[in-house]
Amino acid sequence: MALYVQKFGGSSLADATCMQRVAQRVYDTRAEGHSVVVVLSAMGKTTDNLINLSKQVNPQPDEREMDMLLATGEQVSVAILAMALHAMGAEAVSMTGPQAGISTDSAHTKAKITEINPERIVQNLEKGRIVIVCGFQGLSPSADIATLGRGGSDTTAVALAAALKADRCQIFTDVDGVYTCDPRIVKAARKLDIIAYDEMLELASMGAKVLQSRSVEFAKKYGVELEVLTSFDRIPGTVVKEEVNDMEQIVVRGVAGDKNQAKVTIQQVPDQPGVAAKLFKELAAANVNVDMIVQNVSERGHTDISFTVPRDEVNRARTTVDQLVPALNAAGATYDIDIAKVSIVGVGMRSHSGVAYRMFEALSANKINVEMISTSEIKISVVIRSAYADQAMNVLHDAFELGQTQPAS
Amino acid sequence: MALYVQKFGGSSLADATCMQRVAQRVYDTRAEGHSVVVVLSAMGKTTDNLINLSKQVNPQPDEREMDMLLATGEQVSVAILAMALHAMGAEAVSMTGPQAGISTDSAHTKAKITEINPERIVQNLEKGRIVIVCGFQGLSPSADIATLGRGGSDTTAVALAAALKADRCQIFTDVDGVYTCDPRIVKAARKLDIIAYDEMLELASMGAKVLQSRSVEFAKKYGVELEVLTSFDRIPGTVVKEEVNDMEQIVVRGVAGDKNQAKVTIQQVPDQPGVAAKLFKELAAANVNVDMIVQNVSERGHTDISFTVPRDEVNRARTTVDQLVPALNAAGATYDIDIAKVSIVGVGMRSHSGVAYRMFEALSANKINVEMISTSEIKISVVIRSAYADQAMNVLHDAFELGQTQPAS
Repeated sequence: MALYVQKFGGSSLADATCMQRVAQRVYDTRAEGHSVVVVLSAMGKTTDNLINLSKQVNPQPDEREMDMLLATGEQVSVAILAMALHAMGAEAVSMTGPQAGISTDSAHTKAKITEINPERIVQNLEKGRIVIVCGFQGLSPSADIATLGRGGSDTTAVALAAALKADRCQIFTDVDGVYTCDPRIVKAARKLDIIAYDEMLELASMGAKVLQSRSVEFAKKYGVELEVLTSFDRIPGTVVKEEVNDMEQIVVRGVAGDKNQAKVTIQQVPDQPGVAAKLFKELAAANVNVDMIVQNVSERGHTDISFTVPRDEVNRARTTVDQLVPALNAAGATYDIDIAKVSIVGVGMRSHSGVAYRMFEALSANKINVEMISTSEIKISVVIRSAYADQAMNVLHDAFELGQTQPAS
Repeated sequence: MALYVQKFGGSSLADATCMQRVAQRVYDTRAEGHSVVVVLSAMGKTTDNLINLSKQVNPQPDEREMDMLLATGEQVSVAILAMALHAMGAEAVSMTGPQAGISTDSAHTKAKITEINPERIVQNLEKGRIVIVCGFQGLSPSADIATLGRGGSDTTAVALAAALKADRCQIFTDVDGVYTCDPRIVKAARKLDIIAYDEMLELASMGAKVLQSRSVEFAKKYGVELEVLTSFDRIPGTVVKEEVNDMEQIVVRGVAGDKNQAKVTIQQVPDQPGVAAKLFKELAAANVNVDMIVQNVSERGHTDISFTVPRDEVNRARTTVDQLVPALNAAGATYDIDIAKVSIVGVGMRSHSGVAYRMFEALSANKINVEMISTSEIKISVVIRSAYADQAMNVLHDAFELGQTQPAS
């Protein structure tokens, strides 16, 4: 019999009826003979409501107090689920993050888990109990409650799965898995049975909101097998796991688009050592998250540097860059918010050539102009006009035949 | 400068605006140079709402899980008040019961405080901070959250005041003090400036809901000076403290009425040793709370035994008594729910004679028949027809001149 960690998010926990459905799911897993640790988020809109309440008394609440406040949301969830399981005749016990032995650092509202002592969980599992743990929280070195930041419940689940050497960590959510592309944009998008950690990371970092990057990194680091699945139906989800050779038969696993980007170009920068360092140091100091960076070959001692930033940070970027242009002896800077980033991702790229060529050809055949290109071992991203983003995603999805059932890997 | 413990109940904490008013009150006390520890209940109807939620998933929730659930209510309150105080520029820190060093026994939902280690509170007071503690909760021996039962926040406040050797424990509520009688019934009722612990205990046990008996007992045991006052106005309340000689000038401090009583009479019980013991043992086993007990002198080897019980327990009492009547060789039993208990209370009775006489004469002059009498050192209670209860309270209030300003004591 296996040990499962099952994590349910707020949308699966909207009210008492949802709680009972989750309880049934957990109950059934336990009834099959498996050991179960459940990790819960706060119910429905609880966290938002608590934040609203706090803003009414203080526009900038202290972070330590914010954690004290928000941690109550998960505590309500775990107690209610334990009661719902008791009503079905199951043995279950709830625990706060601190009670579950989860220690964090002192970075309130965005703490990192530093250690897990799962002794109390193990003792209860050995008694046959379902153990229900508050996601998103732990105990700081000063014995305060610290939260892991939004989405931190996924991290709690993965970290507990690692500490308990669980067989699988199931992340229940309101989508039924990871898709080859966003199904709202690409009708032919297909649910993946399996995906490699690195592929999931590339997709997560591009705004596929199924799993937090942090929890995928954690799962990869500790070799925790994840499954993303829906809490509303009893169908298998997508398994996220270590890359195996078979996976390389699939060159491209998925296509992702990100329309919340802006492009900054600094023109005619003198091609001298230290210029890029100075530029990106200042941007980091201004808290601008730079994504793609492209620098063309130098022409007559000058070059253009382009980079992308999240669209809502473009004004911060502009303030910094406009000040730097004279200092860098550059000709000027342009800011373009009508762009989108479209990417293809797949670990198979490592062993297959010609992928970039097929991507550019498909876009070109559809008269979609590529303005920037950036590649990693398992990803190729291009910047195009945002008006063409949806079309480009469909074109690439077709070009790599992602809508067709692929060989199992 | 003094150390105050200030406790605010749910009706003073209904919403963000109430929280800000409470924050202002606490802030002002601190600004006067005093040290302040605040104890809070859950906001408004939070506890009721959580109980309703729990009933939706389980009609009989586990008590350990109930405590896990309900403890969140106070945790929200303390975080919000800390934020509100920060917004005013005050230094403040919130603590859960366990963080404040409050240990309890394992009796979930009705735990008793076993120990307080106020080290963390003291450290924060020494830094000039206002310390805000969750009422109603502590840490059980198994490191679970245990609650003290409803009204337990008063007990938390008094226990903290005792542990910290506070100068005064102020209980803020929605009434402005303790009255000579219920002002809804006796128009002439007057707020008391001062009352002895024992008087308050007699009044509390008769349903004057201003303070829980348990917290008054605790205050008496540890000599904590209490003040009951309103959180809505800036006026002095009623101080509850150790009896001093001056207090004895006041023979009667107050009049109380209780209409939620029923009278049971067992007729013609053989006057033999062990009969009363058998009767009240069985009633206790049936969880019936017996209040007044009166047994008349024996006539020809038989006697009547009468006692009062809370009206909603009369059916349980009837089941037990009807079974016992044959075993006791009694003639029968009667059950009367149309009664009320009216009492006068005052530590001055100890040193003044003729109080009972004045009470009975006043009732008699108004044609109110006395059916049962029970006395303690500082209280005389009578059972009368419930229809006369309000009149009797007014008559006694007048007879003992409680509406007039009394000498300070």
